[in-house]
Amino acid sequence: MDAKTCLEKLGYVGVLSFATVDRWGAPQVRCVSAVHYEPEALYFFTARGKDFCRELERDGRVQVMGYTKYKEMIRLSGRAEAVPETERTRWMDTIFSEQPYLANVYPGDTRHIGAIFCIRDFSIEYFNLGVKPIFRESWAVGNSRPRAKGYGITPDCIGCGRCRTACPQGAIDPGTPFRIRPENCLHCGACAEACPAGAVRPRGDDCHENAF
Amino acid sequence: MDAKTCLEKLGYVGVLSFATVDRWGAPQVRCVSAVHYEPEALYFFTARGKDFCRELERDGRVQVMGYTKYKEMIRLSGRAEAVPETERTRWMDTIFSEQPYLANVYPGDTRHIGAIFCIRDFSIEYFNLGVKPIFRESWAVGNSRPRAKGYGITPDCIGCGRCRTACPQGAIDPGTPFRIRPENCLHCGACAEACPAGAVRPRGDDCHENAF
Repeated sequence: MDAKTCLEKLGYVGVLSFATVDRWGAPQVRCVSAVHYEPEALYFFTARGKDFCRELERDGRVQVMGYTKYKEMIRLSGRAEAVPETERTRWMDTIFSEQPYLANVYPGDTRHIGAIFCIRDFSIEYFNLGVKPIFRESWAVGNSRPRAKGYGITPDCIGCGRCRTACPQGAIDPGTPFRIRPENCLHCGACAEACPAGAVRPRGDDCHENAF
Repeated sequence: MDAKTCLEKLGYVGVLSFATVDRWGAPQVRCVSAVHYEPEALYFFTARGKDFCRELERDGRVQVMGYTKYKEMIRLSGRAEAVPETERTRWMDTIFSEQPYLANVYPGDTRHIGAIFCIRDFSIEYFNLGVKPIFRESWAVGNSRPRAKGYGITPDCIGCGRCRTACPQGAIDPGTPFRIRPENCLHCGACAEACPAGAVRPRGDDCHENAF
């Protein structure tokens, strides 16, 4: 699996969930199928008068998710930018020719109420709940610096093995310290709750991820 | 259509998109199928160690969306609350018995890393792109006060009809003032851009929605 394949899979899903944050800081999510896929970017159509468009213009942060028929969740996190006015018609025509039903929603010239956004720098996560153990992977595309997620075991580990017993997915291997296989980790936190030494800690921006 | 039918339809969809906001104010969305439906409430399972759980505990605002095979988007906006500790096992057992595959993800006792949240007061929106004109409706359930969305035409209307010509869905009827049929409105904003009198204005919290 790689980022390009994940983008292709999103294309097969077709109808994706686009999440943004509104001006009150509340989550907003809607279906979008008016999407054109490039190997390392994604272009999409919305209308200038929609709350969605204002949220993209004001904040720009967006998460895009698709769920495949193979029980794979693919999720892209990035920033959407409006394409320059000079490129707008070109991408709009591309999207409308790839998705003929759009002309039923915006017939004739009415499509010109549309805005086109591009997501070019993003991280992309692949998560498969249909295999055992579960499997996940992630990649950065363009200038994206994804945040580490899930848990890691620090050198404070005392080797008692309680984390390993608690793990629903058998994703922890013995060692000094014990080690979580990140590709099989649910991020459920059972290991952290079970550890008597406080050695299991969230990875991420504020948790000294480089320390372990 | 009514709110109960929409909840039933979400149940048929099965795998829903749950959007929240993280501690950096960024949008987050993931698939959730570990959901139990009551006629006017929704219970769902997640694990205590997940970012999702922390986002629900800290903020609670959530939007839940499903897309049916009939091209209907159903979206619920509300606040998730953790169920009391005394009720947790009961709802967990209900959800695990309704969705046997969950026992593959959290086998045996490992399910006890789970938290159960309930959404009881919410608005629910129905949006059908598969009919012409498009059709939408919304309802409040419990103590929810949904915000008005889309556009309305104020008495500043000069009756020129440009909004009606611009509307992709033919959702504007002549009158004094002209009137947008909210059930057929895309919220695209074409009418507002076309109006030479500034008579078309967004409805909503800060726009005197009761004035028109």
